[in-house]
Amino acid sequence: MSADPTLAERLLRGDKRALARAITLVEDDRPEGWELVREVFPHTGNAAVVGFTGPPGVGKSTLLGALTKAERARERTVGVLSIDPSSPFTQGALLGDRIRLSEHFLDSGVFIRSMANRGALGGLSEAALQAALLMDAAGRDVVLVETVGVGQAEVDVMDHADTIVLVLMPGSGDSIQALKAGVMEIPDVIVVNKADHPLTDTMVREIRGVLSLGEQKGWRVPIVKTQAAHAIGIDELLEQLEAHRAYIQQEGTLLERRRRNLMNEVVAIASSRMRRELEASIREDADVQRLLDEVCERKLDPASAATQILARGLARAAE
Amino acid sequence: MSADPTLAERLLRGDKRALARAITLVEDDRPEGWELVREVFPHTGNAAVVGFTGPPGVGKSTLLGALTKAERARERTVGVLSIDPSSPFTQGALLGDRIRLSEHFLDSGVFIRSMANRGALGGLSEAALQAALLMDAAGRDVVLVETVGVGQAEVDVMDHADTIVLVLMPGSGDSIQALKAGVMEIPDVIVVNKADHPLTDTMVREIRGVLSLGEQKGWRVPIVKTQAAHAIGIDELLEQLEAHRAYIQQEGTLLERRRRNLMNEVVAIASSRMRRELEASIREDADVQRLLDEVCERKLDPASAATQILARGLARAAE
Repeated sequence: MSADPTLAERLLRGDKRALARAITLVEDDRPEGWELVREVFPHTGNAAVVGFTGPPGVGKSTLLGALTKAERARERTVGVLSIDPSSPFTQGALLGDRIRLSEHFLDSGVFIRSMANRGALGGLSEAALQAALLMDAAGRDVVLVETVGVGQAEVDVMDHADTIVLVLMPGSGDSIQALKAGVMEIPDVIVVNKADHPLTDTMVREIRGVLSLGEQKGWRVPIVKTQAAHAIGIDELLEQLEAHRAYIQQEGTLLERRRRNLMNEVVAIASSRMRRELEASIREDADVQRLLDEVCERKLDPASAATQILARGLARAAE
Repeated sequence: MSADPTLAERLLRGDKRALARAITLVEDDRPEGWELVREVFPHTGNAAVVGFTGPPGVGKSTLLGALTKAERARERTVGVLSIDPSSPFTQGALLGDRIRLSEHFLDSGVFIRSMANRGALGGLSEAALQAALLMDAAGRDVVLVETVGVGQAEVDVMDHADTIVLVLMPGSGDSIQALKAGVMEIPDVIVVNKADHPLTDTMVREIRGVLSLGEQKGWRVPIVKTQAAHAIGIDELLEQLEAHRAYIQQEGTLLERRRRNLMNEVVAIASSRMRRELEASIREDADVQRLLDEVCERKLDPASAATQILARGLARAAE
């Protein structure tokens, strides 16, 4: 009698169902999920992880669909991780994009997964980073991570990417302003999608202007014009992604970046756990509730309350 | 011989120099600053705190300048707290806006302060919230807090406001998309500035469309068209701000909101301290560095490293 292969074994063999199951375990914050990541972690580090960020509506999912097709044509396996915002409203637009990715559903070389923002900042990025590791362990050559928006949660998710792509479209002026104001970090590659728009070249010039304000040493950020819906510009984008990867490998910055990213990941996981512990203690602990009442009555200031709660939380966590 | 008045006493009297000094102490994270907040905290809770958010370039500072003028015409004292992004590039645009606020520099009823984003998420919002409390304690009737962007840092700063205003301009489509996708919470008041733009009414319609997707009970979010540079629409904005304040006072939501905000503040301060402690331990502790080396060599997974570092950090903090 032969033992059934474990989930980890099936995952490492590239079994898509095992991968799906593993990500669900991580997403649900189940101990088996963390255990699994621990088990397969030595087999990670081989995938090229590319992060895509940019405002909603610029066509990131369509772009990822087109890129996936191009990678498959080169016989590389692809994992797509799509980080959705939790919406109090309809998610119509995002859903529409997802359908465009669905042509790959039957291809065993493509694995697509979306994760929903649960509101807890640490929670989502933590789970997303683990999911990317699981895809890596499952032998995906390329892992494409997509996030919406330019906030801190997205930055945290991007912390796991080897290459960061900012996707814009003509007219998405907020993002250029954000780049200019330094709210957003300079990405490795900039894509101007929907490049059939008459203002495309104006936008490319504007972006060049913003980039020229900062110091650029070594890697020169390319601006790639695409029309993802018509698969235009995708080959050039792929070339630029490969060029960036070759560059960071050659310069040793890939290792450096991964060290920094892994460190960020450790900090993010630890912070998120601490914050969760803290919030639980605030919700559940009657003594903490009394402290908060005193704050609301302006008898105790927030910093002193934080000190007291922290001392309690630490004592509890150290038990 | 009579003792000199303390900094706290001078602050509570509304002395602008004392207020400036106090904010610097808090910004520099000096123990005297925290001590001062503790001392004056019982005298806070009187100011109407209004937060302004929105992408860079929509004219928030100009709007705050115009609002300040209008509040002064009504004989109310004003504190303006401007949260700047740390820019690797030029801060030209922001500087220009600041100059427009400078006409109030000689008015003792107006206090303007900008705080720079130090990169550390918790760090800035923590200090900003304390600064708002100090302005409140110094007897400002109105405290206007301005942030750039729609990321998590801005949300954290907004956690201290009684009323949240989202400022947009025609063409800033990213933000409407972000609202629609639920990345951004629904504000209390929406301003469309630069309303001489031909696309203004189109934008107002789009915003109405987004608002109609969500459930609106009680307060109906008004959309105010302004041309801040020409002081057009400012009186209406002021009326809407007052209407919102009257509404939340009457419904009891002001107290509820403040309780939630103060709780968020306590959590933010505590989280930020924990994270700082953690980052210090990662930087300084040779054992922690060894753990990180193991992570980079893929011998130890990030979550297990976090668990070990957390245990060490807790032990250290509990000492």
